[in-house]
Amino acid sequence: MAAWSERLAGVRGVLLDISGVLHDSGEGGGVPIPGSVEALARLKRSQLKVRFCTNESQKSRGDLVGLLRHMGFDISEGEVTAPAPATCLILKERGLRPHLLIHDGIRSEFAQIDTSNPNCVVIADAGESFSYQNMNKAFQVLMELDNPVLISLGKGRYYKETSGLMLDVGAYTKALEYACGIKAEVVGKPAPGYFQSALQEMGVESHEAIMIGDDIVGDVGGAQRCGMRALQVRTGKFRPSDEHHPEVKADGYVDNLAEAVDLLLNRTWSCKRSTYGDWDTSHCVSTKRSLLTSEEPGEQAGASCTVHTAQS
Amino acid sequence: MAAWSERLAGVRGVLLDISGVLHDSGEGGGVPIPGSVEALARLKRSQLKVRFCTNESQKSRGDLVGLLRHMGFDISEGEVTAPAPATCLILKERGLRPHLLIHDGIRSEFAQIDTSNPNCVVIADAGESFSYQNMNKAFQVLMELDNPVLISLGKGRYYKETSGLMLDVGAYTKALEYACGIKAEVVGKPAPGYFQSALQEMGVESHEAIMIGDDIVGDVGGAQRCGMRALQVRTGKFRPSDEHHPEVKADGYVDNLAEAVDLLLNRTWSCKRSTYGDWDTSHCVSTKRSLLTSEEPGEQAGASCTVHTAQS
Repeated sequence: MAAWSERLAGVRGVLLDISGVLHDSGEGGGVPIPGSVEALARLKRSQLKVRFCTNESQKSRGDLVGLLRHMGFDISEGEVTAPAPATCLILKERGLRPHLLIHDGIRSEFAQIDTSNPNCVVIADAGESFSYQNMNKAFQVLMELDNPVLISLGKGRYYKETSGLMLDVGAYTKALEYACGIKAEVVGKPAPGYFQSALQEMGVESHEAIMIGDDIVGDVGGAQRCGMRALQVRTGKFRPSDEHHPEVKADGYVDNLAEAVDLLLNRTWSCKRSTYGDWDTSHCVSTKRSLLTSEEPGEQAGASCTVHTAQS
Repeated sequence: MAAWSERLAGVRGVLLDISGVLHDSGEGGGVPIPGSVEALARLKRSQLKVRFCTNESQKSRGDLVGLLRHMGFDISEGEVTAPAPATCLILKERGLRPHLLIHDGIRSEFAQIDTSNPNCVVIADAGESFSYQNMNKAFQVLMELDNPVLISLGKGRYYKETSGLMLDVGAYTKALEYACGIKAEVVGKPAPGYFQSALQEMGVESHEAIMIGDDIVGDVGGAQRCGMRALQVRTGKFRPSDEHHPEVKADGYVDNLAEAVDLLLNRTWSCKRSTYGDWDTSHCVSTKRSLLTSEEPGEQAGASCTVHTAQS
């Protein structure tokens, strides 16, 4: 079992998921996850390159960034890889005219797209707009096409809002796939091309990059399949069973973005609850001192802490 | 390729699907499919046993039968195998208290069921009640259970209403399965136990029975897996591609219930458009006479018509 120092060695770039890592979305835009505003600020002051890689498909990139900046996050539109702009490029390249099953909040992203006489369906996280009537209309459009094309912005199963877990677009995409007997094309995590775009935009090779997200499959599994490392945070949609997922094992599990940044910046290699796979490090002897260190941000940057692991 | 006489030999009982075979549902209860009222009457006057085997889960058995009787169909509640009563038996046997994601029209079937403190979800064709809010509530109930149980009344992909094709419960069941990472238990076609119940209630062995339905997978494939024969009608949700389904091949394809009954009662073995698998019998020489015969119901019952097949 590698120590944190080894697991994080050579990382030059960090891809950050947004919902469930920076904030929990919900009423009035949601709330920041404690410690994440400061953690992002520290990360951006470091030598590491940072890019945001989201499947957000209820809000335009501009609206999302505005909301996050209002919460205090240091983020700009140009730093965000989001599925709607990526989808628009695909639609134009392939001459596709979509029927849009999307949230009104993201409609502006498709303002330049021809939606007359649709020859495909684009489905995003439509939220309350996933009415039976709207789903049925999308279904009927697909069934009338000789070669039905369904493009799904992400395939997330659910996400966490302040009010609880919420069904994500992936569930509704499965419904249309089943009803029509087709397979959707996914634009967004975990599609490899989507991660690769984000890496290119950041200018970092996959083996030098790490993904931090709350989705064990979409974030962690997807990034790892692209040759990246990936940490899962225990915020957002994280559930304890994720640490024993039958197919995906993160390169590490951390309490939140703040702890991930602490580890990346080598400020403290606490191992109290940060685990690797099924290995619980709660017996580590350095726990208390490390935790204390991480509770005093800004003071001890670069402090050298001994790394203790079960094997060390 | 067997002639109709061989394919239908030894049939003693007929299981009839309802929606898409007797009538197309829709506004105001829908409309009877031309010829089906008379065909059912002929069938019931014959020596063959008849039972109705439906996945209808928007209406109670009583309401469904009332509607069909109003259209002129000879049908009574005791002749109908329907998924809601079958589900109630299962819930009681297993001490399950359902959260109900169902249409208001079928709520009365669950009047005697304890729905307090749910330990499972029952999903049926909820139609307009498949709102995002209702789907999300069912999802949240399942995610809070240690051992999530999802019971689905059928798993149909879609059905036909007078206004067009409509998403059926199966699509929404798939959505919950994917979101929760679980597998639903299906009560209704194509579950083998469901067909077997209907056969028992009819008092006929599977090899002596034939299913007539508009769903190539749910009706035809399901019945065949139980050792029955099955005809697909070209009414209801039938689509021409069904005749080339990659996995299921009906024992015959007929234009409608009227033609199926003609064949069963040996009144005419017309083969104009009745096909077996990929074999199109449109070249049969007896077409005209046979069709004329079948256009004059009631007059020539028992008339002996030569059976022509491509091989004969």
